[in-house]
Amino acid sequence: MADDIKVSITVIKRLPKYHYCLGELIREKVKRVSSHELSKMVGCTASQIRQDLNNFGEFGQQGYGYKVEQLYREIANILGLNTTHKMVIVGAGNFGQALANYEEFGKYGFNVMALFDVNPKLIGLNIRGVLVLNAEEMSSYIDKNDVEIAVMAVPENKVEEVLYILSRTSIRGIWNLTPRKISSNNTGIMVENVHFTDNLFILSYRLNEESLYQKLSRTKRKKVLIQ
Amino acid sequence: MADDIKVSITVIKRLPKYHYCLGELIREKVKRVSSHELSKMVGCTASQIRQDLNNFGEFGQQGYGYKVEQLYREIANILGLNTTHKMVIVGAGNFGQALANYEEFGKYGFNVMALFDVNPKLIGLNIRGVLVLNAEEMSSYIDKNDVEIAVMAVPENKVEEVLYILSRTSIRGIWNLTPRKISSNNTGIMVENVHFTDNLFILSYRLNEESLYQKLSRTKRKKVLIQ
Repeated sequence: MADDIKVSITVIKRLPKYHYCLGELIREKVKRVSSHELSKMVGCTASQIRQDLNNFGEFGQQGYGYKVEQLYREIANILGLNTTHKMVIVGAGNFGQALANYEEFGKYGFNVMALFDVNPKLIGLNIRGVLVLNAEEMSSYIDKNDVEIAVMAVPENKVEEVLYILSRTSIRGIWNLTPRKISSNNTGIMVENVHFTDNLFILSYRLNEESLYQKLSRTKRKKVLIQ
Repeated sequence: MADDIKVSITVIKRLPKYHYCLGELIREKVKRVSSHELSKMVGCTASQIRQDLNNFGEFGQQGYGYKVEQLYREIANILGLNTTHKMVIVGAGNFGQALANYEEFGKYGFNVMALFDVNPKLIGLNIRGVLVLNAEEMSSYIDKNDVEIAVMAVPENKVEEVLYILSRTSIRGIWNLTPRKISSNNTGIMVENVHFTDNLFILSYRLNEESLYQKLSRTKRKKVLIQ
């Protein structure tokens, strides 16, 4: 790995937001966008956008802005959305089934190949052409088919067990949709934990904003030195 | 609203991450944490954490750090997680049902009161004590019960229609879990759109990182001036 040109993960974490907003612009048939306009959509500063994108190459020019489609494609490329990722969903309950029905995955190259469950009532179900298979076959299926990503959609109390099974396969990444955090330190598998309630909390903040600031006295907000 | 003490929404958007990490520390029975330690968990700088938290009051002291439980409670308070929010789920398909089963909501004061659907096969279902009601009753139910938040879990092509119905009720916020973006400009309802694939894209990036940097030549990455 060429570490000297490696881009900070904090920059990378902003790319999906840029990608999403550029996708919206394409839908609205917008051809070019300035960093200023894009910053308003994303909710950060124009200079941050320019800095972030400069890490990857020459995507815009002064006085003209960015070509929307080109930038969208380039960011998709950086995020690995231009290749296909083989994916399985572990857990075929309501959440697993909803995910199997989620059409956006295919759009970005995430190819849902199978679901796995222990429940005999679910095994054999066909969800948009994707089969629910017996969890006992999961290990061999992953290894045989070079599956890259496992989506964790099991009940919270099954996470440890599934993790143990996955750690003995060739799986490379886990996308964890359960509320139980998985750390990636000792398995060698890359993990991303979804906190999908994060912006429910933001909504809650906004609904409570007015009464909050009435309660917060100015004295409470004075600056202090903190380690 | 006291605008002069109002905290920037970009600060607020980082609070759920702090809240989540502090929750992890409480589970691990950690009593206090320095901004440095917390920054490693969150993935930002210690000085950003100190700056963010200084907006709200005196939460730590030099050489001691933050009291984990106190800070957790204070952030929950800011995010409005110490009060109850009445919530309904619009759409009782797999995703809606999975959400009704999601125990974390109750933990943070989000009280799921009912689901709504048009499908006669789903109407009448009881999910962990929460009933699926006829979508025709939704408006009057929301107004009569002072429901604050509607969770949008319908198919993408129903979003407009549901939005129109909701805009004529007393609902205050929409938590949109569909891939179709909702803007909050003209309805007066606050909207948060979930992009829950964002960190699937990060996972994809990390899986592709090595080959990406082999492809990116240094010349491509030279800095340019961009508007």
